[in-house]
This record gives sequence, C-alpha cells and structure tokens, in this order.
Amino acid sequence: MLKLYFAPNTCALASHIALEEAGADYETVRIDFAANQQRSPEYLAVNPKGRVPSLATDRGVLTETPAMLAFIAQMHPQSGLAPLDDPFAFAEMQAFNSYLCSTVHVAHAHRMRGYRWADDEVTIEGMRRAVPRAVRGAFELIENGMLKGPWVMGEAYTVCDPYLFTLARWLEGDGVDTSRFPRLMDHRFRVAKRPASVRAIVAETG
Amino acid sequence: MLKLYFAPNTCALASHIALEEAGADYETVRIDFAANQQRSPEYLAVNPKGRVPSLATDRGVLTETPAMLAFIAQMHPQSGLAPLDDPFAFAEMQAFNSYLCSTVHVAHAHRMRGYRWADDEVTIEGMRRAVPRAVRGAFELIENGMLKGPWVMGEAYTVCDPYLFTLARWLEGDGVDTSRFPRLMDHRFRVAKRPASVRAIVAETG
Repeated sequence: MLKLYFAPNTCALASHIALEEAGADYETVRIDFAANQQRSPEYLAVNPKGRVPSLATDRGVLTETPAMLAFIAQMHPQSGLAPLDDPFAFAEMQAFNSYLCSTVHVAHAHRMRGYRWADDEVTIEGMRRAVPRAVRGAFELIENGMLKGPWVMGEAYTVCDPYLFTLARWLEGDGVDTSRFPRLMDHRFRVAKRPASVRAIVAETG
Repeated sequence: MLKLYFAPNTCALASHIALEEAGADYETVRIDFAANQQRSPEYLAVNPKGRVPSLATDRGVLTETPAMLAFIAQMHPQSGLAPLDDPFAFAEMQAFNSYLCSTVHVAHAHRMRGYRWADDEVTIEGMRRAVPRAVRGAFELIENGMLKGPWVMGEAYTVCDPYLFTLARWLEGDGVDTSRFPRLMDHRFRVAKRPASVRAIVAETG
C-alpha cells in the first residue's frame, strides 16, 4: 500500500488529491512541522531532504511532487489523470508541473523559507518584500495562456489541476491581489468543489 | 524535425547532450543572452517565459528541462535513456531531475538571477553571498546517496546524467570547493568524455 507523508498547507496536498482522484489504495502520515518532525532522524530515514511530500511504495520512497504526480497517474491508468499514450501531451503536462515546482513554488518559498538562500535577516526580509511581485509574475503566465481551460491541459482533468489548485491557495497569504486572476480563481473554486479535493482537504485540516 | 533553442553555459546543455545521446534528428538555434534576445518578441512567441531551453516539435513547443528530458527519452526508446517500462524507476529518475531543477539550479540562480526574487541591490548581494553555502548543501545530498554510481540511477546511463553534469559544471563559478565532492567530480569527468557530450559542448562553445 502507498503511504503519503504530508503536512497541512504544503504542496503535499496536490499528491493527496491526486491519490483520491485515482482511487488509490493508500494511507497518510502527518508530519508535524511545528515540532520540526521533518528533521527528525525517523523522518530523515524516509526522506533525507527533510521535506514533504514523500510517497512510500513497495519498491522504496519517492519524492518531488512532479515525479509523484506522474507516478500516481501511471499507476492508475484508468483514472485518466495523465495522457499516458501521447508523449508530447505527457511532456506538456510535465512542463506545467515543473514550472509550478521550480518557478511558482520557489517564488512563494521566499516568504517563509528565505533561510534556504540567505544567511542574514536583512536579506531574508528583502526577499520577503519581493514575494508579492515575484508570485504575481509567475501566475501571470498561467492566467494568460498556460491554463488552457476549463482544466489546465484543456478538456481533460489531469494531475496538473490539483497541483495548480494547491499553489493558488497561497496567493492571498503571499499578498497577491487575486482579482487580477479571474481564470485562475475560477479554476481554483472548481477544483475545490470536486469530491476528491474535499476528502483530501478534510483529512488534512478538518 | 526537433529544434533546440539554447544559450551557452545554461541548463540547455543537458537537453542538447540528451539529443546527441538519443541520436535524435534535430537542429539548434542559439539565443544571444548578451543581446537580451531571450526577451525579444520573436523568442517570446516561441517561449513566453523568455528562457532557454525550448524544444520546438511538430506538435508545438516544449519547455522545462525535466519535461524535455523525459520526452527525448520517450521519443527515442532504443536509446535506453530512461526506464520507460518501469513506472517506479521512471519516477525515481524524474524525482532526481526535479530536484536538480527546483533545488540545485534554483540555489545556483541566486548568484546571477537574484532580481527574480528581490527588488533591491542589498538583498541581491545578500543572496549572492549565500550561494556557495546553498549550492554546496544541495549537492551534498547527491554526493552522499542520490548519485548511486557509476551513473546517477546505477548501472544504466539515463537523462539524469547529462543534467547532473551540466549543473555540476557551475560549482567552481559558484564558489564551492569541489574537493568535497569526489564522487560527483568523478561522474562529471566521465560524462564529459562521452562522445555525445563532446559533440554538444563543441557545438555550443567551440
């Protein structure tokens, strides 16, 4: 059985929703960030990066949301969560997820995880000031074209959708005016209402 | 025919080498960063992100190195550049590439592209000071386990190898003491000597 290690309000929610959408046989393990459990010896033995999500499988542990999402789709082909028989469409899906991971999430992370890229408080505060502008810029490309509609990849709901949804929920906290993003917000509310999303969110945060 | 848009000394080299390893039918287009050609209307029409690499195909343009690498491997299955018939091994490969993209490359980018995450020179300089520490930390996980040996994924050479090679070439410029990374440097020199790597490097920088 798959085992998802997550913490609430992290990008682990994307994989959690994807597991629900796929009808996967899985269980969850909550990692307590307030107690710094992600740096505990027990968790570092699962994922030496000390981050969530991690997905334990019979073969070993997987990390990195884009890789996990593609894996969940491949292991549940009946769910239609990825265009598995079309390498170009699959690559488009992966490119979207990679952009979320390396550009959108990274822009957001400068608000709370600035210590990754700076050693002094002045710099960390300077990065924090730029977060609204950097996050807004990263989402503008999505609003203005990458989000094809009605779902990210067009007519088919794929693993891109819960991932975009998860990161878009951070917009207000990042100080971005969401009225600039009507298509993105419409997408966010449509994903939020899906039963799989509701189940995952309730399981994480009640 | 595939068309790779690249600039020298960027992560585009990973895809360039992968195309050579795959024996792909492709041509290259050099984007002149010194002339800011990546922000020209012509190039933004190819890739609205204004970055390299991009890979133009008969179906449209692909971006994001992890997505492009998996696509190149899938389109050239005879090359053996990815474990295409094993979703778990494929996900491990993807997780490695995602880590390179969103952690290793991002740590490096704070040296030259700090303006992405800051609006003032004091913060940009503060981020630059932390680059050796951040990059070193990102590579330590690779040195201490993620690089299985002899190749990243073990016995098989995959698209992870030219990608790791490409980013590891930036270590000296980032102020990291490479003597801390004997396994990584051994890997780097072995990738450098492969005929496909030599052809791609010569084509980019002579």
